[in-house]
Amino acid sequence: MKYNYCLTLQYDGTRYNGWQRQGNTGSTIQGLLEEKLSAIFGEAVDLKGSGRTDRGVHAQEQIANFYAKKEVVPEILRKQLNLELPEDVRVNHIVLKPADFHSRKSAKKKTYEYCIWNSVERNVFYRNYAYDVGETLDLDRMKQAAQKLIGTYDFKGFSSLKESKKSTMRTIFDIEITREKERIYIRYTGDGFLYHMVRILTGTLIEIGKGSMEPGAVRKVIAEKERSAAGPTAPAQGLKLLKVYYER
Amino acid sequence: MKYNYCLTLQYDGTRYNGWQRQGNTGSTIQGLLEEKLSAIFGEAVDLKGSGRTDRGVHAQEQIANFYAKKEVVPEILRKQLNLELPEDVRVNHIVLKPADFHSRKSAKKKTYEYCIWNSVERNVFYRNYAYDVGETLDLDRMKQAAQKLIGTYDFKGFSSLKESKKSTMRTIFDIEITREKERIYIRYTGDGFLYHMVRILTGTLIEIGKGSMEPGAVRKVIAEKERSAAGPTAPAQGLKLLKVYYER
Repeated sequence: MKYNYCLTLQYDGTRYNGWQRQGNTGSTIQGLLEEKLSAIFGEAVDLKGSGRTDRGVHAQEQIANFYAKKEVVPEILRKQLNLELPEDVRVNHIVLKPADFHSRKSAKKKTYEYCIWNSVERNVFYRNYAYDVGETLDLDRMKQAAQKLIGTYDFKGFSSLKESKKSTMRTIFDIEITREKERIYIRYTGDGFLYHMVRILTGTLIEIGKGSMEPGAVRKVIAEKERSAAGPTAPAQGLKLLKVYYER
Repeated sequence: MKYNYCLTLQYDGTRYNGWQRQGNTGSTIQGLLEEKLSAIFGEAVDLKGSGRTDRGVHAQEQIANFYAKKEVVPEILRKQLNLELPEDVRVNHIVLKPADFHSRKSAKKKTYEYCIWNSVERNVFYRNYAYDVGETLDLDRMKQAAQKLIGTYDFKGFSSLKESKKSTMRTIFDIEITREKERIYIRYTGDGFLYHMVRILTGTLIEIGKGSMEPGAVRKVIAEKERSAAGPTAPAQGLKLLKVYYER
């Protein structure tokens, strides 16, 4: 019998080489947590995240689970972990889940938020949390394009995937675009996102906002499945995993 | 004839040992800027700030001026400085001012903002920009106390000053307290603030919000001029110099 521990995590991705554990190429969130958990549980812990976040990408709420033989009180484990973790990674919640719960496979939908700092004057406080775009962006055009992205499509053209045997069909439930003073937030909710998909969607919406691409171009990217038809990949630091949704 | 250059600066104070240039005790904002400016102008530049900010305190908008023999185009100087400065210090504006303009002496009022992260759950994104207070705070009590602080008083009890021959009379024009979800902002506008004054006012308002001090206690601190009658000094990272006002 193994216990299935589920963690709700928050991290500032600035200093990390992304979520996924790697050889010796720098610190990763997964690697850091597995190291602490393995020491606490006295066995090699394999921590599964709801999804990978790239180098520099943040998480308001990431979900991850792992199996361990030892039973511990979740709240005590949480406090111990937070004492040992650096200040830019926090564990906000730990619960025991049924054996078949899997942070990625059980997830029903996810919301990512992309933040654009839209001003000719940069802001030092957003340097690690937003992408600087000095040009005026036409939000109405961006919203028109966003509407055309909602639905179930093959989003291969909006990904950096090489040839893959896995399905590149995904469903986007909603894209919300709001402005708060100099900040523009784009919130994407979908059943899952391909590699770099949110960043390429954002890069494309920004081109549309600038007027250098038409709102209708997004349907062409979907139809042609060609990465080259989409806009550039927006930089990592503007991206944050906001929330992962599960069935109750 | 010397030219009087006036800079509008923004900085994230996290990595710095405060505004004021010091011997060899770490990098300061003033020291960093003077080093760059001295190299550009070919003379020792003495940069005067509108006020000192402590180690870890931020500035949304700090004003500083310096005199130099050489005339340069302000916008070219600004761009050159920003290329050479680290990402956490930005120069947003440079103008030439009349010879008698002094960033501190000419200032009519200043606004400081203190940010409290008021939740039992910490937030990694505010670790360097807010003070974590887990207890419930009664904003009405804090606002009552704030009202009693508005006016011209001897604020010596709200400072960490040792004996000083200079006047400790200051005028607070306004204290605004607002809540935005988990964040509480306290914005102080006054004609000037004594050493640690905003942080001690904040520490005191927090005690009042928790219920461990009465709103009326602030008048006692003013009357007695005793530091020990006030609350603790709230930590530096929650504090930000928002704006410095001058006569047009």
